Amino acid sequence: MSKKELRIGLIGCGFMGRTHSNGYKRVSNFFPDLEYTPVLKAVCARSEDKVKAFAEQWGYESYETDWRKLIARDDIDAVDICTPNNMHMEIAVAAAAAGKMVLCEKPLSRTLEEGEKMVDAVESNKVKNTIWYNYRRLPAVTLAKQIVDSGALGKIFHYRTNFLQDWTINENLPQGGAAFWRMDADAAGSGVTGDLLAHCIDLAMWLNGGIKDVSSVTEIFVKQRVHDETGKMEDVKIDDACSFHCHFDNGSLGLFESTRYARGHKALFTFEINGEKGSLKWDLHDLNRLEYFNNADDSTVRGWRSIHVTDGDQPYMDKWWVPGLSVGYEHSFVHQVADFLQTLETGEECHPTFRDALETQKVCEAVINSANNRRWEDTHVDWKNI
Amino acid sequence: MSKKELRIGLIGCGFMGRTHSNGYKRVSNFFPDLEYTPVLKAVCARSEDKVKAFAEQWGYESYETDWRKLIARDDIDAVDICTPNNMHMEIAVAAAAAGKMVLCEKPLSRTLEEGEKMVDAVESNKVKNTIWYNYRRLPAVTLAKQIVDSGALGKIFHYRTNFLQDWTINENLPQGGAAFWRMDADAAGSGVTGDLLAHCIDLAMWLNGGIKDVSSVTEIFVKQRVHDETGKMEDVKIDDACSFHCHFDNGSLGLFESTRYARGHKALFTFEINGEKGSLKWDLHDLNRLEYFNNADDSTVRGWRSIHVTDGDQPYMDKWWVPGLSVGYEHSFVHQVADFLQTLETGEECHPTFRDALETQKVCEAVINSANNRRWEDTHVDWKNI
Amino acid sequence: MSKKELRIGLIGCGFMGRTHSNGYKRVSNFFPDLEYTPVLKAVCARSEDKVKAFAEQWGYESYETDWRKLIARDDIDAVDICTPNNMHMEIAVAAAAAGKMVLCEKPLSRTLEEGEKMVDAVESNKVKNTIWYNYRRLPAVTLAKQIVDSGALGKIFHYRTNFLQDWTINENLPQGGAAFWRMDADAAGSGVTGDLLAHCIDLAMWLNGGIKDVSSVTEIFVKQRVHDETGKMEDVKIDDACSFHCHFDNGSLGLFESTRYARGHKALFTFEINGEKGSLKWDLHDLNRLEYFNNADDSTVRGWRSIHVTDGDQPYMDKWWVPGLSVGYEHSFVHQVADFLQTLETGEECHPTFRDALETQKVCEAVINSANNRRWEDTHVDWKNI
Amino acid sequence: MSKKELRIGLIGCGFMGRTHSNGYKRVSNFFPDLEYTPVLKAVCARSEDKVKAFAEQWGYESYETDWRKLIARDDIDAVDICTPNNMHMEIAVAAAAAGKMVLCEKPLSRTLEEGEKMVDAVESNKVKNTIWYNYRRLPAVTLAKQIVDSGALGKIFHYRTNFLQDWTINENLPQGGAAFWRMDADAAGSGVTGDLLAHCIDLAMWLNGGIKDVSSVTEIFVKQRVHDETGKMEDVKIDDACSFHCHFDNGSLGLFESTRYARGHKALFTFEINGEKGSLKWDLHDLNRLEYFNNADDSTVRGWRSIHVTDGDQPYMDKWWVPGLSVGYEHSFVHQVADFLQTLETGEECHPTFRDALETQKVCEAVINSANNRRWEDTHVDWKNI
Repeated sequence: MSKKELRIGLIGCGFMGRTHSNGYKRVSNFFPDLEYTPVLKAVCARSEDKVKAFAEQWGYESYETDWRKLIARDDIDAVDICTPNNMHMEIAVAAAAAGKMVLCEKPLSRTLEEGEKMVDAVESNKVKNTIWYNYRRLPAVTLAKQIVDSGALGKIFHYRTNFLQDWTINENLPQGGAAFWRMDADAAGSGVTGDLLAHCIDLAMWLNGGIKDVSSVTEIFVKQRVHDETGKMEDVKIDDACSFHCHFDNGSLGLFESTRYARGHKALFTFEINGEKGSLKWDLHDLNRLEYFNNADDSTVRGWRSIHVTDGDQPYMDKWWVPGLSVGYEHSFVHQVADFLQTLETGEECHPTFRDALETQKVCEAVINSANNRRWEDTHVDWKNI
Repeated sequence: MSKKELRIGLIGCGFMGRTHSNGYKRVSNFFPDLEYTPVLKAVCARSEDKVKAFAEQWGYESYETDWRKLIARDDIDAVDICTPNNMHMEIAVAAAAAGKMVLCEKPLSRTLEEGEKMVDAVESNKVKNTIWYNYRRLPAVTLAKQIVDSGALGKIFHYRTNFLQDWTINENLPQGGAAFWRMDADAAGSGVTGDLLAHCIDLAMWLNGGIKDVSSVTEIFVKQRVHDETGKMEDVKIDDACSFHCHFDNGSLGLFESTRYARGHKALFTFEINGEKGSLKWDLHDLNRLEYFNNADDSTVRGWRSIHVTDGDQPYMDKWWVPGLSVGYEHSFVHQVADFLQTLETGEECHPTFRDALETQKVCEAVINSANNRRWEDTHVDWKNI
Repeated sequence: MSKKELRIGLIGCGFMGRTHSNGYKRVSNFFPDLEYTPVLKAVCARSEDKVKAFAEQWGYESYETDWRKLIARDDIDAVDICTPNNMHMEIAVAAAAAGKMVLCEKPLSRTLEEGEKMVDAVESNKVKNTIWYNYRRLPAVTLAKQIVDSGALGKIFHYRTNFLQDWTINENLPQGGAAFWRMDADAAGSGVTGDLLAHCIDLAMWLNGGIKDVSSVTEIFVKQRVHDETGKMEDVKIDDACSFHCHFDNGSLGLFESTRYARGHKALFTFEINGEKGSLKWDLHDLNRLEYFNNADDSTVRGWRSIHVTDGDQPYMDKWWVPGLSVGYEHSFVHQVADFLQTLETGEECHPTFRDALETQKVCEAVINSANNRRWEDTHVDWKNI
Repeated sequence: MSKKELRIGLIGCGFMGRTHSNGYKRVSNFFPDLEYTPVLKAVCARSEDKVKAFAEQWGYESYETDWRKLIARDDIDAVDICTPNNMHMEIAVAAAAAGKMVLCEKPLSRTLEEGEKMVDAVESNKVKNTIWYNYRRLPAVTLAKQIVDSGALGKIFHYRTNFLQDWTINENLPQGGAAFWRMDADAAGSGVTGDLLAHCIDLAMWLNGGIKDVSSVTEIFVKQRVHDETGKMEDVKIDDACSFHCHFDNGSLGLFESTRYARGHKALFTFEINGEKGSLKWDLHDLNRLEYFNNADDSTVRGWRSIHVTDGDQPYMDKWWVPGLSVGYEHSFVHQVADFLQTLETGEECHPTFRDALETQKVCEAVINSANNRRWEDTHVDWKNI
């Protein structure tokens, strides 16, 4: 069977450039029934040495050092944005204007204002678009979504989630530069809120619906760090830690926390949902498992079920190995590529779209405002994701 | 060796009457070196049938049906208050005025105002006093205190804790009555805040110092329930759920949550502390374990240590069995009795005193106010517990 | 309600003397509906200083230093044997001949021959008898028994169990003496086989029926240790470690292992049963939990259930606290006392009886023989326990 | 940098054909510094439809339907054998005779006799060879090897391991055919012994040295199944379950178990090593973790460390993502390809070689014989793997 091609132009060859490239390269081995196959047409980064090596390592047919050239090329169908956050808006708007599909790494943007321009761009130009909130596509998380949507949890009372890391405790880390742009407010927009809580918020609204209002607190534990560009000690402007509570549209309470100062946790992304009839828990450090409490089980033998989500009748797992054999972090990206390719066949949107991600951005903005203003803030979220 | 007697008069013979009685009855078997031994002199409750049966079951020498008579007796050294919260103040003040030592079940009181009267009473009458925040005395929790006090965690960044239950999801439960007074605002003062968060706050300040300010949210999921006394549907006035974030005096952030609507959790009391050099975690459902992350461990073989706190060199465990053999919930009360008796020898205070508990009450009050006012509230806590 | 008395005479005041005494002292507080209550009439040990202190600590009315005198007393209904294993037979036979009920700490005896004499004695004298295989009475273990007996597991394929400790790795520990008689073959009969595997075998046959044949291996890792009595290095004669596989009468395979050289495990007693329809797992280090896999659960949300056995509708737990609050090791002994007292009312036997324990002894003997002879051995077990 | 090619000819396109192909395809993306890169030259299977589709899905340049033709091709450097076990010997001997490198899926062979011919073939023809005991290359398992080799565990006392599955409980599964050849004694040689215990034995000897003797038991729970070829009920000849104990050369005891009848376990491969100074545990269902007990830790805060093996200083993990992000089952194969390619540069052997795997085969043969003869069997293992 000869496949249709989706010709990819990737911009940015850091960590996320690798995860996306791997997604493109593997999808056709594991999802052979898709009509489309990605072709790695070009990759772009400012440093020629770096982009050349990346192109060779990952098998891109060509490379560019100016992203505007990449967007202008006729042989590119889709632009994938893996740059620091401060470039998302400009590139996405230009790519949409050029009629390219746009796949953009999360978060959508640094600010709500930037995000709105991006949504306008893809919608007015009618180009296919998606944001890489990849964790939705881990099998255990997708299974959680199925359980929630089945109504098995009943009325929801609580949603709690956190994303805990410990990599910035060392006060000698700089802000800015290729490895540390996430600590530079100009490049990143915010700290843990846009980097980590955005993932928490995306999953939370996907699983539990819209968020109405938030009350948050943020903290900067290390007040000054050397800036990579100036070489001088400068005030740190990103949030090192952030927690908030909120009301969901469905009446449940939410509790969110993120930090890069939780010693002992590398990437502890967790969520838990408590409903009238049942509850769910998940944890990125053991990502193949979903824990499920079903209150309908006979009371004497009732307990949290530890579901090892590796069976062929569980989400995505018919594509991989045999029961009991785990998949890892990177598979979420392969699945997102597969789902994106699938929507090329069906004509459906590939969620989360830019518009979906804008709703997450609204919550992020309200969270930052709430912390600054020390008061509850409405989010104005209009969640319609299905 | 002939022991000195501490003659106990217990008021209230519900659940807490049982846990305290068990503490008194067992302490001399397991702490044989104490100079003092408790004597179960009298128990008091309004229902004669009930109190008589209780006295027989637990071996109290006598019983009363009027707590004023119990307090007036010459053969009572210490009054132990196990009534619903609405009786704490009146009994404690009267007992102190009668020169009795006072042991009072937590929380100290329904309101800060009541609590202040209680502190005045015991301090002006110079009577020994303590509040049964029993969880401090579980071996794994006491070990956590030792680790924190050793400085092994370094500067603290985060403290998170919750107490999750699911027993009031059923909307047909009444408010009020012997079994459900915790759901009646008049009897209990508050809902999960005084019942469950008070435990979280006591441990948090013991382990991590004073709390400066709080921002909270509360929820009542079932808005009306039949009241036990009137037999009518009445508005529920207690908080079904409450979460708050806060700043500790030491600069760390706190995150607290409690609910009775977390399906699948019976009494999931947990805490976690993250410091520069290490972290600790604990969970009441597996109460003999403490998890400890020591960042000084060699990086390739570093991980959370699951410490089974059952060895003779760990807190209290030389008194019980042999390594590997667990103790349970009730042991915390035996330990509190032992520590109280010990302070009769040393003349020291038995923490948490009424004054210590008043600081916890200040946080509870600020939490309730914050939820009502939808704003940050200062706590005015003056934490000096050592 | 005035209770009937069961007047206890305890022989031996070491570790097991404490666990049994605690069982007697607590039972009436928590099982108030029993007709009988134990009375601690006398305790016996050779050292007068030691036995006097023990009697005072635990509230025994009197003490003896010669066990024959204790047995001869008219005011004793039941003799409880907590001595090292080498005294079990002589005392039990004499106590039965004197018409006393006999409660004996496990294992029944050092050898099968001794055990047979003990069974003969209690049966010919028609005295009530039981062996303290206490772990049956932990709530999670009793729940396992109920699940097995309900047929929920279907045909059984596998039973695996181990009991792992690490306390004898230190080669400077002596053999013999009050603290180390378990390492002296004369006092103990065998090493881990009688001490630890006997518990495994008792539970295994209770849960899964009789064992037909065994093939085992034993090891002595530290070949010589100083003997407490002689003060000289002598050959160690007990088994430091032992594992065996076996066939059960029901066609399932068994796998058993015990050692005192498993670094990191203090008292890791576990079992697991795999049946056609479901499986069960349990672990003494987290003794309130039972894990249950029910193959009838819907396949996409199927997983091991972690049952926190603390609810009022689970075995024994209506007697203790409230859901979520754990019990410990010692509660198994309180439950065994309660069940023993119950059988005084009903006239039933209190399992495991001496005869039940003899069947366990047969397996132990076959295990030791198999290791010595390096071949399969039949057990001649005739398991009828119901 | 232009890479040297290793031209692969793969025989067999079932489950293992996929895992190996994936290994070849991904290695150069993640191990860019290797001199060699695999080229998927040809794949071979009897069914043209199937092999053609496989070649297209995985990007093989060509296909064959006769393995002899594949071996005869000049453009193949290495033959990779992924057929059922009954074809291993014939193909390997022919490939070696043709001067090809040979990579063969485990187990080496059905019988020791076949295995010896294979070793002769690769050694006399001096062709590079390896067996895909892939689990050695999971990061947590490789870390275990490093810890053992460092001497951190001290003298070893115990090694226990099992591999538990539940997929053949259904008595309607056939024996034989493409999906069920592992249940056909002619195709597989043995049941769980060659399929699952072979993995356990390979890791055990790699980590803990040679095995001297074994005593085993096997069972066939479903005695007859329909044979795929004849369509008739025939006696099942493979072992459904097998356990054995053994002595290692270093004086430690081993305990091994495998079954396909452990309801609730899909692929529960575990091992545990207990040494004088420390212990290790690992479990395939949570494959990124290694548990480590270090007895040198201060006694009051000592516990099993749960090491999440995802940091850049842990084996292989500098090649993948960032700390906290998991890898999966398939990565073990990528690592084996990488290590194989590395040895093309260094000229070293790629363990496990055919000769290494022959030692595992000797243990398997002794295990089967021991079960049949109901006696201990020597293994004649000569373990020299470094």
